[in-house]
Amino acid sequence: MILEIADIRIPPGKNDAFDAAIKHGVESVIMRAEGYCLHRVVKGIESPERYMLMIWWQTLEDHTVKFRGGPLFAEWRAIVQPFFAVPPSVEHYSLVTASFGVPS
Amino acid sequence: MILEIADIRIPPGKNDAFDAAIKHGVESVIMRAEGYCLHRVVKGIESPERYMLMIWWQTLEDHTVKFRGGPLFAEWRAIVQPFFAVPPSVEHYSLVTASFGVPS
Repeated sequence: MILEIADIRIPPGKNDAFDAAIKHGVESVIMRAEGYCLHRVVKGIESPERYMLMIWWQTLEDHTVKFRGGPLFAEWRAIVQPFFAVPPSVEHYSLVTASFGVPS
Repeated sequence: MILEIADIRIPPGKNDAFDAAIKHGVESVIMRAEGYCLHRVVKGIESPERYMLMIWWQTLEDHTVKFRGGPLFAEWRAIVQPFFAVPPSVEHYSLVTASFGVPS
């Protein structure tokens, strides 16, 4: 299992709308993707326009190949992309250690 | 409850040693801190020298005031700081939504 972390920046003043949009996007699109396991979305205290979207996938390819290359990707982007101030920075991670099991 | 995310960069070739050091540092120091709840450490797949240390604290001040201003901070830094290629970027986050409860 691997963790996707997307570092997202939105314009000032759009927090309430983006909170609702990303929740809707994850629940209506991401959760239907093959290999999706769990998700968490957090927003910045020092940087209120910064969000971290964290999704656990069964494999890296479930995200990078199947999801991004499949029909759900356009649905997802249609919901969240209008809020992006800049293109999100997305990288993937593997677990080193945790206070309890993977994930979330 | 709030989430600290520390974005850490280490020099190439130090992964095995840092994996052990950060696990030791979290388990022997961070977990004794007042307000500590849970932790997770992940390392980059695309960027193997990049680590994300995620710690849930009861309050922001448990980390920024009590931990950083208390005696445990020097113990923690003594274990992990020798591996830092650059000063870590640390910010704090609050939950927007998740597939199950806070945290981790």
